[in-house]
Amino acid sequence: MDHLKQTFAVRFTYTVFFTEQLFDTKNLLFADFFRQQAADKLAKPILFVLDAGVTEAHPKLAASITTYLAKHTAFTPELLTVPGGEAAKNDPALVEKIVDAVDRFGIDRHAYVVAVGGGSVLDLVGYAAAISHRGIRHIRIPTTVLSQNDSGVGVKNGVNYRHKKNFLGTFAPPVAVFNDSQFLTTLDDRDWRSGISEAVKVALIKDATFFNWLETNAQALAHRDRAAMDYLIHQCAQLHLQHIAGGDPFEMGSSRPLDFGHWSAHKLEQLTNFSLRHGEAVAIGIALDTLYSQQLGWLDETDTNRILSTLRTLGFNLYHPMLDADDSAGLLKGLSEFREHLGGQLTIMLLEGIGRGVEVHDMDNERIRQSIATLKESNDLTYNVLETL
Amino acid sequence: MDHLKQTFAVRFTYTVFFTEQLFDTKNLLFADFFRQQAADKLAKPILFVLDAGVTEAHPKLAASITTYLAKHTAFTPELLTVPGGEAAKNDPALVEKIVDAVDRFGIDRHAYVVAVGGGSVLDLVGYAAAISHRGIRHIRIPTTVLSQNDSGVGVKNGVNYRHKKNFLGTFAPPVAVFNDSQFLTTLDDRDWRSGISEAVKVALIKDATFFNWLETNAQALAHRDRAAMDYLIHQCAQLHLQHIAGGDPFEMGSSRPLDFGHWSAHKLEQLTNFSLRHGEAVAIGIALDTLYSQQLGWLDETDTNRILSTLRTLGFNLYHPMLDADDSAGLLKGLSEFREHLGGQLTIMLLEGIGRGVEVHDMDNERIRQSIATLKESNDLTYNVLETL
Repeated sequence: MDHLKQTFAVRFTYTVFFTEQLFDTKNLLFADFFRQQAADKLAKPILFVLDAGVTEAHPKLAASITTYLAKHTAFTPELLTVPGGEAAKNDPALVEKIVDAVDRFGIDRHAYVVAVGGGSVLDLVGYAAAISHRGIRHIRIPTTVLSQNDSGVGVKNGVNYRHKKNFLGTFAPPVAVFNDSQFLTTLDDRDWRSGISEAVKVALIKDATFFNWLETNAQALAHRDRAAMDYLIHQCAQLHLQHIAGGDPFEMGSSRPLDFGHWSAHKLEQLTNFSLRHGEAVAIGIALDTLYSQQLGWLDETDTNRILSTLRTLGFNLYHPMLDADDSAGLLKGLSEFREHLGGQLTIMLLEGIGRGVEVHDMDNERIRQSIATLKESNDLTYNVLETL
Repeated sequence: MDHLKQTFAVRFTYTVFFTEQLFDTKNLLFADFFRQQAADKLAKPILFVLDAGVTEAHPKLAASITTYLAKHTAFTPELLTVPGGEAAKNDPALVEKIVDAVDRFGIDRHAYVVAVGGGSVLDLVGYAAAISHRGIRHIRIPTTVLSQNDSGVGVKNGVNYRHKKNFLGTFAPPVAVFNDSQFLTTLDDRDWRSGISEAVKVALIKDATFFNWLETNAQALAHRDRAAMDYLIHQCAQLHLQHIAGGDPFEMGSSRPLDFGHWSAHKLEQLTNFSLRHGEAVAIGIALDTLYSQQLGWLDETDTNRILSTLRTLGFNLYHPMLDADDSAGLLKGLSEFREHLGGQLTIMLLEGIGRGVEVHDMDNERIRQSIATLKESNDLTYNVLETL
């Protein structure tokens, strides 16, 4: 009998909105979104899951949401608060807590779950939404630089399983993302800075003009200039969205070019027991793979120095003692773990110029060690200079 | 700042293969599939999850799989057995058991999980595969009529959560389906028959010629003619695949036209504590909505009788005392539950002719009661006739 070949495409569409004070009753953006969805004809429950870190920094948030929805929509909001940060992704009880709320409040495939928080809470809520009723509609309201310009506008979710990072997760595009710049004002300096390294990353592999802008504005960004940050987030989110749409959105192939600087960053986060934030580790990872690219003769000294100097002006420290951890457990082990993670064949993005990423399939241990030595040397030099001053 | 609109399409492709004795070392179909995937260059683990009901009926299955893979591929098979049937979907420990095996055996996004079993095991394994590493490749080997012609060739998976049917699940197309007709030979009569009602359903709403064939071959099918069953499964699977590809594969809209006869079937399964199989309940549901369509004047008496008579010739009993359960807890409650399940607006498929389904958005309680009365009457008549003979 003939075999049957099945082929179809599923289209996904969502908008990333940029605004300020989303739940101010004078801001109609959120209400208009639902009006355009023609979804508020029926009085639906809508489940908000809030990051405890965000409600702490914005104590009136829950009340504003309730007031806003009562004034502008037919929705009855249900609110749930969960802890934020990576720990949230390690606790299976939190997935269950959200799934239970979906059940209890009768959230069906035509209702909405809204996540308000940093990347970890967005990952957790996105996962719970994706597995409930085979995927209920979820809206993301990212509250950190990192989630507004990178993970929050993308299509992935995930939680850790027995401390294995993102072991459980799916690809599930949100129905909308609302980036509210007001949330960024209460971030501490490390969180403000951390998200910037993903912008440097995407500029370096895709967009030289954006890198030039980052270089010019590094000082302003380090001093928390809000207009500069708004521009950075918009550009970075746009490049991230284009990458997803133009490539392999659900990563069914093997190419993952947005991982530049990440193979070492993942390992470094783990080696430092997550005392380094993701973005801080990525800045070091970028510096490392930049120096490696220079050793291959693909980047000249001027461009190499421009990259390292921009990262330093942004306030990143480009060396950490764990870079010199013993080979067997250290960074080079991270390289082999990354190879396994990719299914046996290594694919690493390097630079053949600013704005021009290129994939390679192996890396030389000696060159990696040499790049680490260079980072250590400049770091010692920096401290010596500081001591001399 | 400009909002950013994201739009992309994700393409899915898989083949439903038809064969016999898939793991006979002389049958190269399974091995050729992997060769074409260019995936067996690397010696990967491959995880098989087997339905305990199937290994009981086919005690040599596990050994055949191991021998086959050793002879024809570079894969190292890992085998796991799980209980079959609906109970398997109620046990969260089984999801964890499979996820643990994925972790322990190092099954990554380029390796495979193969499920061999009835619809419940396929649903369970498909779900575990869909959430592991954001979706690992899964292959389905359905072993029942129902799963070979319907659920197993589709894109859904799911498990029950606190006994709520398919509360957790995703849409995740398999990378291949292998329908091996040999597995059908060991089914008991009720399982053999149960799957046929989905073929009647899809024929009635989409394909009059296929219904004519079913009518002509009902006797042969009831007597377990294998050639007739092979044809039925192929046709039904094809219509099911066309429906998915041509419509709304991930059910993001509200139309679900393949649910003909199902609103009452779901409730009836529950009311009978699942003593009725799904297919047996669907046969009754089809009969009910056929009579309802006749009452609306959309179906003439001849066609109505052809449908009921075909179902009876296939061996289905078209009445169950629970059809007359008290309204508040009974079938009409099922209608309102179905409305809630669809998100507030009811959409029910009825017939305006054989092969021509049509959607309606409300049903009249009195007409439903009248259809039940007609089914009860013919049932009493049948018993009276039998007693007279």
